[in-house]
Amino acid sequence: MSSIGKEIACLDKGFVRLVDVMGDDHSIVQAARVSYGEGTKRLTEDRGLIRYLLRHQHTTPFEMVEFKFHIKLPIFIARQWIRHRTANVNEYSGRYSEMKDEFYIPSLENIRPQSTMNKQGRSEETFPTDQAEQIAAIFGRSQDQMYAEYQELLDMGVAREIARINLPVSNYTEWYWKIDLHNLFHFLKLRMDAHAQYEIRVYGEAMAEIVREIVPVAWEAYEDYTLHSVRFSRLEANALVSMLDTLPSDEILATFGLKGRELREFKDKFENMKHQ
Amino acid sequence: MSSIGKEIACLDKGFVRLVDVMGDDHSIVQAARVSYGEGTKRLTEDRGLIRYLLRHQHTTPFEMVEFKFHIKLPIFIARQWIRHRTANVNEYSGRYSEMKDEFYIPSLENIRPQSTMNKQGRSEETFPTDQAEQIAAIFGRSQDQMYAEYQELLDMGVAREIARINLPVSNYTEWYWKIDLHNLFHFLKLRMDAHAQYEIRVYGEAMAEIVREIVPVAWEAYEDYTLHSVRFSRLEANALVSMLDTLPSDEILATFGLKGRELREFKDKFENMKHQ
Amino acid sequence: MSSIGKEIACLDKGFVRLVDVMGDDHSIVQAARVSYGEGTKRLTEDRGLIRYLLRHQHTTPFEMVEFKFHIKLPIFIARQWIRHRTANVNEYSGRYSEMKDEFYIPSLENIRPQSTMNKQGRSEETFPTDQAEQIAAIFGRSQDQMYAEYQELLDMGVAREIARINLPVSNYTEWYWKIDLHNLFHFLKLRMDAHAQYEIRVYGEAMAEIVREIVPVAWEAYEDYTLHSVRFSRLEANALVSMLDTLPSDEILATFGLKGRELREFKDKFENMKHQ
Amino acid sequence: MSSIGKEIACLDKGFVRLVDVMGDDHSIVQAARVSYGEGTKRLTEDRGLIRYLLRHQHTTPFEMVEFKFHIKLPIFIARQWIRHRTANVNEYSGRYSEMKDEFYIPSLENIRPQSTMNKQGRSEETFPTDQAEQIAAIFGRSQDQMYAEYQELLDMGVAREIARINLPVSNYTEWYWKIDLHNLFHFLKLRMDAHAQYEIRVYGEAMAEIVREIVPVAWEAYEDYTLHSVRFSRLEANALVSMLDTLPSDEILATFGLKGRELREFKDKFENMKHQ
Repeated sequence: MSSIGKEIACLDKGFVRLVDVMGDDHSIVQAARVSYGEGTKRLTEDRGLIRYLLRHQHTTPFEMVEFKFHIKLPIFIARQWIRHRTANVNEYSGRYSEMKDEFYIPSLENIRPQSTMNKQGRSEETFPTDQAEQIAAIFGRSQDQMYAEYQELLDMGVAREIARINLPVSNYTEWYWKIDLHNLFHFLKLRMDAHAQYEIRVYGEAMAEIVREIVPVAWEAYEDYTLHSVRFSRLEANALVSMLDTLPSDEILATFGLKGRELREFKDKFENMKHQ
Repeated sequence: MSSIGKEIACLDKGFVRLVDVMGDDHSIVQAARVSYGEGTKRLTEDRGLIRYLLRHQHTTPFEMVEFKFHIKLPIFIARQWIRHRTANVNEYSGRYSEMKDEFYIPSLENIRPQSTMNKQGRSEETFPTDQAEQIAAIFGRSQDQMYAEYQELLDMGVAREIARINLPVSNYTEWYWKIDLHNLFHFLKLRMDAHAQYEIRVYGEAMAEIVREIVPVAWEAYEDYTLHSVRFSRLEANALVSMLDTLPSDEILATFGLKGRELREFKDKFENMKHQ
Repeated sequence: MSSIGKEIACLDKGFVRLVDVMGDDHSIVQAARVSYGEGTKRLTEDRGLIRYLLRHQHTTPFEMVEFKFHIKLPIFIARQWIRHRTANVNEYSGRYSEMKDEFYIPSLENIRPQSTMNKQGRSEETFPTDQAEQIAAIFGRSQDQMYAEYQELLDMGVAREIARINLPVSNYTEWYWKIDLHNLFHFLKLRMDAHAQYEIRVYGEAMAEIVREIVPVAWEAYEDYTLHSVRFSRLEANALVSMLDTLPSDEILATFGLKGRELREFKDKFENMKHQ
Repeated sequence: MSSIGKEIACLDKGFVRLVDVMGDDHSIVQAARVSYGEGTKRLTEDRGLIRYLLRHQHTTPFEMVEFKFHIKLPIFIARQWIRHRTANVNEYSGRYSEMKDEFYIPSLENIRPQSTMNKQGRSEETFPTDQAEQIAAIFGRSQDQMYAEYQELLDMGVAREIARINLPVSNYTEWYWKIDLHNLFHFLKLRMDAHAQYEIRVYGEAMAEIVREIVPVAWEAYEDYTLHSVRFSRLEANALVSMLDTLPSDEILATFGLKGRELREFKDKFENMKHQ
């Protein structure tokens, strides 16, 4: 698998590197066919089966593909990342080893004001360049100072596990991280979302690029049915239905890619909405 | 909590009984407020916060409510049920104890032909009553015979763990099952779905009745944003958007319950669909 | 990896087959070295590091090796197996597909009386051959009858998901099962134990044979520090210590393989016991 | 349950507070009896059953008790803590809310040199008081400076999610943390261990104090069979056995608390060791 070893730089000093992978699109099909036994002669086409599985949230076959990444990332991103519990992690230890002199400084265009719309995020606006430069300089200077102080404490003989307590969360750490495709899809859905912090989105997109190479068919299905799907609440669906009398003809719907089984499912969904 | 001890009969001999519960709607709010710290003065209303959390899939506060059920169910349903891994289970053991003479026989209206539309399910059609009765009689007779044989083997001194291997999967078992609200919502989404086997839907609905009593606000939000939500694929969303020029006025949308923040979110979603 | 595709027959009609594997002994070391960073120059020898990790229950590096098996097994064993939740499963579905005419019949020497010592197990004793043959014949006859009845119901058009409810738990099913090495070690510790049911031990031993080929160094460490380790309760440790004045000389302890760091750890453990 | 609301101060500014609990010793017994059905008339005594379950690692009944804590802790401890994945967490968010001006400064006796024996820990030695005071002063001064800088960046309008990247890992955070008794026992085994970092041991001991009040019988069993148990590797067990001819008389063993079933199990274990 030629993607093994592929490394993508992330932020100013981080990276995502594919260490190993088990399986590909075919592994999903292979596992699914065990479920269906001999009873699925009609779903002979692999692509169709993968798309069917994802569309209907039959997620277990997607758990049969496993990815292992080596990732270098700032601690404050590691703290968001680790909230995804269905994964395996081996992290660099500041108790065993010295933390390295590597800290994240946002690029000037990523130093942004607080969003007024979104309590948890940054604005679309930027700072004037000189102000952004000033802020970046503050970050850098303090990181240097805190690392020098860390070294000084180590030189005094202070235990590593204590000396490191004032290192900032911009300090880079690294880990091996292993996860199956279903759970990685879930991670990417949340962490490539516009509401995720920019710095973790960068890692999400790097992994997405690698995943797409390994499981191109599953990835396409994921984009169509999960990543770019739209979910309407009961209230919203009611409002939408009131605006729509009838669906266009099958010919027109076909121009959107809706054919065969998928077309039938769409029409059923529409009918159900009307009669809910 | 007066719902504790509540027992709902399921199928012909099964039940769901609420053994214990930790938390209620308020526990969700309480945990969420730790996340938001003092920074969320505007989200002061508990109902609004719970609905916001669920709408935006901030699922961790829903994990803070925990349910413990005692359930009696046929083995073939237990096998579907146990696929939900994020739960705690203690099951009756056929190695330690004798299996009981209790087996599931479907009611006549639930003995149905194979669906021709749905490879995994039964038809909407029923059998003629006399034929359904005949089938039910076959089930009953064989269950009696297999249980008699089991008893015979035990009488011969055969170890329980071997004697039971020919008991049918219609045999009832029981277990304690403990799960948090977020994972229970996921279970119910899949197991109350029209594609789930009828016999597990019955248990899903029984638990839903109990959950609704314990966390009425979260349940309502769950119905609005998850259970009765509609998800459209990228293809479907594109087709829908082509049929819709503009949204109705805010006044009309308000008649569907779309107001304030939720209204803004709906309009944003619509705009995003148009420009995707 | 030449072990891929290796299939080991289990019981009368089952098997364990290695479908795929990610990693080997080296992957454990690779992940561990990320934790230790540059701080572990002394632990340069891979074998020593693997043994150290397992001895000290640093389990996360062992999660970095992943196994995928295709397994054919009777339903009553599948029910014990699935209690191990940290694994991925895709099982043959009796709703989609017809169950096959394959049932487990214990060999004559495995048809045993109930143990009088062990409430959950079978005795060391066997039945007289003619009695064992009679019991095996009962199993076979009823399995044939129940399968014929299943076919009859299918012929009448009964839905597969209903027709199968009287199939016995001796019916074979199959699944893909994926698990990491740490969790597989835990599975094997419990399921290769003398108290596990014979029929699942057979599968445990088959997987052990495969695992040993893939990660020989980790397997040896697992045998030394987990599988054949002995745990004493506080009460037992107190009793033992009272019987032991001093440890033998280092020379004598070396004859048991206790040297270097491992010897020091043993002596520390002994001292701690004496002063607890 | 009078322990609800109990709060124990930890380190200089942290705490553990019991928010809620589901179940007690009796819940363990209740769940276990479902497994054993009517087949366990001899294990009628609850205490005996709980001790039997723990001794034999029948862990599922212990999962039936659930604890919810509110915890305030430094970020570097939160990072160790979160590695325990089988738990539910809701953490204060530095994206939504301002981080508070609270940082951990070790007490003078906990500022220690690097251990020379243990690469991951601190020494038993202490620094001279004036040197420890100097180190503590360095910590405090830098924390003040970094927090002032954080405030300055917020005043400039920098988004909270960016402004916080240079806050040190000694900054306090808080979370709600919910976990079942079995997984909590596992947490405490690892985090009350002498090799765990002192600062997390403090939290472990605080939770232990609370747990002991809620499930006194299970706690005692946990101390006897897990916390203060001693595990010997195959090599060590062989060495031990060579030193021991025979066990003392039952009368003597009884003085260590070894009687009845537990005495038989000890003797069996000893015999197995001799013949391994």
